[in-house]
Amino acid sequence: MGTGQLARMLALEAHCLGLDTVVVGPEEAPCAASVTAHRRVQFDDVDGVKAACRDADVVTYELEHLPVATLRALEGQRDAPNWLRPSASVLAVSQDRLHEKDMFKSLGISTAPYQAVDDHDGLGQAAATLGYPLLIKTRRDGFDGRGQRWVRGPQELAAVPAADLQGCIAEGAVSFDRELSVVAVRGLDGGIACYPLAENLHVENMLAVTRAPARRPTIAEAANAMAEKVAQHLDYVGTFCLELFQVGTTLLANEMAPRVHNSGHWTLDGAVTSQFENHLRAVAGLPLGSVNARGVSIMANLVGTLPPLSRLAALPSAKLHIYGKSPRPKRKIGHVTQVLPTHDDADRAEKALLDCVNGVG
Amino acid sequence: MGTGQLARMLALEAHCLGLDTVVVGPEEAPCAASVTAHRRVQFDDVDGVKAACRDADVVTYELEHLPVATLRALEGQRDAPNWLRPSASVLAVSQDRLHEKDMFKSLGISTAPYQAVDDHDGLGQAAATLGYPLLIKTRRDGFDGRGQRWVRGPQELAAVPAADLQGCIAEGAVSFDRELSVVAVRGLDGGIACYPLAENLHVENMLAVTRAPARRPTIAEAANAMAEKVAQHLDYVGTFCLELFQVGTTLLANEMAPRVHNSGHWTLDGAVTSQFENHLRAVAGLPLGSVNARGVSIMANLVGTLPPLSRLAALPSAKLHIYGKSPRPKRKIGHVTQVLPTHDDADRAEKALLDCVNGVG
Repeated sequence: MGTGQLARMLALEAHCLGLDTVVVGPEEAPCAASVTAHRRVQFDDVDGVKAACRDADVVTYELEHLPVATLRALEGQRDAPNWLRPSASVLAVSQDRLHEKDMFKSLGISTAPYQAVDDHDGLGQAAATLGYPLLIKTRRDGFDGRGQRWVRGPQELAAVPAADLQGCIAEGAVSFDRELSVVAVRGLDGGIACYPLAENLHVENMLAVTRAPARRPTIAEAANAMAEKVAQHLDYVGTFCLELFQVGTTLLANEMAPRVHNSGHWTLDGAVTSQFENHLRAVAGLPLGSVNARGVSIMANLVGTLPPLSRLAALPSAKLHIYGKSPRPKRKIGHVTQVLPTHDDADRAEKALLDCVNGVG
Repeated sequence: MGTGQLARMLALEAHCLGLDTVVVGPEEAPCAASVTAHRRVQFDDVDGVKAACRDADVVTYELEHLPVATLRALEGQRDAPNWLRPSASVLAVSQDRLHEKDMFKSLGISTAPYQAVDDHDGLGQAAATLGYPLLIKTRRDGFDGRGQRWVRGPQELAAVPAADLQGCIAEGAVSFDRELSVVAVRGLDGGIACYPLAENLHVENMLAVTRAPARRPTIAEAANAMAEKVAQHLDYVGTFCLELFQVGTTLLANEMAPRVHNSGHWTLDGAVTSQFENHLRAVAGLPLGSVNARGVSIMANLVGTLPPLSRLAALPSAKLHIYGKSPRPKRKIGHVTQVLPTHDDADRAEKALLDCVNGVG
C-alpha cells in the first residue's frame, strides 16, 4: 500500500528476488506505477482495498497516513496471522505522536519532554512545565516538518490560532549534538538486525544528508537496544526506523517510522542487503540478509529540481536513484549515494556531492 | 530491442537512472515486460520496429540474433549519427563467426585455428590442416553450445549430414587452461573501461560460474588490450564481452558478444557500477561509472529449476537475481552472486553456493 518512491524502490528490489508486487493507492500515475503493476483505489474505500489485495500473499505499507480501519479490515480477511506486515496495531501507535511517545516512555526510552495539548489552556500549562521555546506538533499527519511550529514566548503563544491547537503535543526544546537513526529489520521469526547507525543532517526539516556508519559510533549499542525494545514490544515484522537525538552521551527517541526510511536509502549501495530487500525478506518470511556496510556511505537527497544527469553521473562512484517524479519545490525526487573507504574520504567527497545536488558551481 | 533477462536487468537499472525504457520483441509475455513498457513486434517487421522505436532517443539491443536489415533501417531513420548504439555494422560482424574471427585476425588477435566449411570437401580440407578433433560451429545463430558438434575422426566426419555443414566453420581443438572474459564498456566519447578480468566455468556449454576478479590476474593487461583494440576498430558504444581461452601465457579470442553478458552479471553486486548501468550510461552519452570491484565475486547461474528462495536467501551475503521466467530444462532463470573479501573466502563459499543452486544437500 502506497505508490511513492519507497514503494518504487521496494518493487524494484522485489523484481530481483522474483517476488511479484502490486502497488495500491489513490494517485493516477504515481512513480511506483512505472516499475510494477498498479491498482488505483482510495485508501478509505475498504472494499476497494480488500479487492485490490485479494490475491496477495502478504500486504505491507510504505506510508503512515493510512486509515487504520482499512488495515484492520485487511487483517480480518484471512486466517493467517500477520498477513498484514507490519500489523495495523503498529500503525495505530506510530501515526499518533502522543501514543508513540507514551510507548517510548512505557519502555523506559527517553524522549524530549512533552505534553498533550488541545487548546490555549493546555499550551499555557505546557509552557509553564516545559519552558520556552516550545515546539508544537500535530499528533497526526505531520511529516518533513509539516504541522510543526515553534513558540518562543507568551506573545507567540497567544498568537497561535485556537483551531491549530486541537490534537497536538508540545515538546520542550532539545539542544542536541546530532541526529541519528537506527534502521533495523525484524524477521517473521523475531530475529532482528540493525544497520550501522546513521547520522542525519536535516535542512528546513527535511532530511538532506545521511552518513553511515555514523562517526563516533560508540553510542550505537545503546541506540540498537532501543530499536530492539520497540520492535519486540510491537511484535514488528519488516524494516523500520527509529530517529534519535544525541545530547552528550544521552539518546532521546524522536519518532519511529514503521516502514523503510529515507535515512536508510544509503543501504541500496552501501550495505550488503538494502533496507528494501530486507523488508521484503522479512514480510515474505525469508531469512534476513546481511546488514553489513560496504564502506562509509554519504547519501544526499535530490529535492525540488534535478541537476543535469551528466553532472550527477560524473561524481566518482556515485549511485543515482531517480524516482521518476515531476520536479516541484520541496519534493524529494531522487537521491545520490557515494560509498567511500573511510570517513576522511567521505569528508572530502561530501562538499562536491552537496554542491552538485544543490546545483552550485 | 530484446525482451529477455538482459533487457530486464537493463530496464531495472534504467529506472534507477531515471531513464525511460521500452522493450521491443516478438514474445507475448517476456520477462522484461513485467518491469517496464513492452511493445510486441516481430524483428523482421521493419515498419513495426521503426514505429515501436519512433519516440526513442537511443535504441540499443540485448541479443545478437536480430536482422541487420532492420537495424540499418533504424539507423537511416534519424539524422543523429550512432542513434543506434552499438551500430548495425557491429552486429553484422559479430553475428557471423567467420567475419568475427577474420576481424580478430586482421587486428593481430590470436584465435583457435579455423577454416570456413560448407560441405564435406571443405571439412576434409579442414581436417587435413587442423587435425582431429575438430569443432564444427554454425557461423550464425549459435549460442550456449547450440549449433556445435565435435568430430573426432574420419568416420564421424563422414557421418555429419551434408545439410548441417552449410555455413559453418571448423575449429582446431584448443587445450586451454581456463576460460576468461573481458567485460568492457566504451563511452560515446571513445573512452573505454574494462572490468576486472573474469574467470568462467562452463558446464555443458553453458556458463555455470564466474569468478571476478580472476585468480592469477597478470594476464589481464593483455586481455584488456585485445578488448580495447576490438572496441576501437568497431567504434563500439556500450558494454560488450570478449571471451578468451588462456593457454599457458597465450590468450586466444573465442568470441565477442556485442551486448551485456552473462559473465558480467557479477558486476550488479560486485562492482561499483554494473555492466548494465554502464551500458545505459554509454548509449545515453553519460560519463561512465567506476568499474572497480568491491571484493571477490562468485556468480552462479540458476538453470532449469529454481531452488527454494529460502535456501538461496540463506546463503551468506547472497544477492539474488530471479528473472521471472518459467522453469524449463537448460533455461537460465536467474543467478546468485556472493561478494567475498578474498579468493580464499570465495574458495570456501563456492561449494555451498554450487550445492545450493544445483539443489544438492
